[in-house]
Amino acid sequence: MEEKFNKRLREAKGRFLHFCVDEVTLSNGHISTREMVLHPGAVAVIAVTAEKEVILVKQYRYPVKEVLYEIPAGKLEPGEDPAVCAPRELAEETGFLAEKWEKLGTFYTAPGFSNETMHLFYATGLRAEEAHPDPDEIITYEKIPLRKAWEMIRTGQIKDGKTILAILWIEQMITD
Amino acid sequence: MEEKFNKRLREAKGRFLHFCVDEVTLSNGHISTREMVLHPGAVAVIAVTAEKEVILVKQYRYPVKEVLYEIPAGKLEPGEDPAVCAPRELAEETGFLAEKWEKLGTFYTAPGFSNETMHLFYATGLRAEEAHPDPDEIITYEKIPLRKAWEMIRTGQIKDGKTILAILWIEQMITD
Repeated sequence: MEEKFNKRLREAKGRFLHFCVDEVTLSNGHISTREMVLHPGAVAVIAVTAEKEVILVKQYRYPVKEVLYEIPAGKLEPGEDPAVCAPRELAEETGFLAEKWEKLGTFYTAPGFSNETMHLFYATGLRAEEAHPDPDEIITYEKIPLRKAWEMIRTGQIKDGKTILAILWIEQMITD
Repeated sequence: MEEKFNKRLREAKGRFLHFCVDEVTLSNGHISTREMVLHPGAVAVIAVTAEKEVILVKQYRYPVKEVLYEIPAGKLEPGEDPAVCAPRELAEETGFLAEKWEKLGTFYTAPGFSNETMHLFYATGLRAEEAHPDPDEIITYEKIPLRKAWEMIRTGQIKDGKTILAILWIEQMITD
């Protein structure tokens, strides 16, 4: 089923995204073009308090022009270990430190047009310290009971894919 | 928290992706740049048989260079109603027609760098007809019991975000 790269028809680079249009040959011999955005990869952290509340950050997302509820997340630095990046992002965005870290899994957010790989961690044993977000991130956080989070998913108040995925994953783990 | 557009620093267009680098002013007055990919939006369909099996397609995804298990999905045509696109994509990729359609929700797959909006549908009352994929899509499908699908998520055999989200959503609905 593999698709063979023939040539790059177009590309453009930003600081972290790399847009490409490639000509490829499909396994059935057809020639086609594929458009994609190369991404450095990211981590996301579902942090849950002893009272079964999930820590959600609120942040304006320029591509969708609205403020979203999301689990803490951030891009990997070049060569950075996701297990190092995850506690850093949680602390930067919320101030929380966690005693216990569990890797839940790794998934692709949008494999139809991007290689973004998301490493998902589950953090418990939380202790609050001071947040220290990047200067170009304006972020607040809220603690939401897990059952309320599911309600917010069903009613469309939580709209971020990785956040929905992570909340449902934890609910499923608890149910199992 | 809104970010004000100042000017477009760079852009590049493909057939369906539009890559942009914009200069913006944050709500705290800081100037920053935002990179993003504009996308036409998409639908995804979690189709479940009477035997509680989910229909997963297998397809090579060029951006990630591997064959993935995914729920049937596809991009919206300009102006297309998601409720029209969803049955079309299910039929094209798998041949299945569904008697009952339920809209589960709408979410952003990667709002940190794209505006892709995914409309998620739940299809039941399935009847098999012949598949008729696009000439540049090479697709097969499998029926996977829902409980096995959760096992495949935990072991990393299912790696696509929207597919994990949709399977967990259905599991949660059934549990509720």
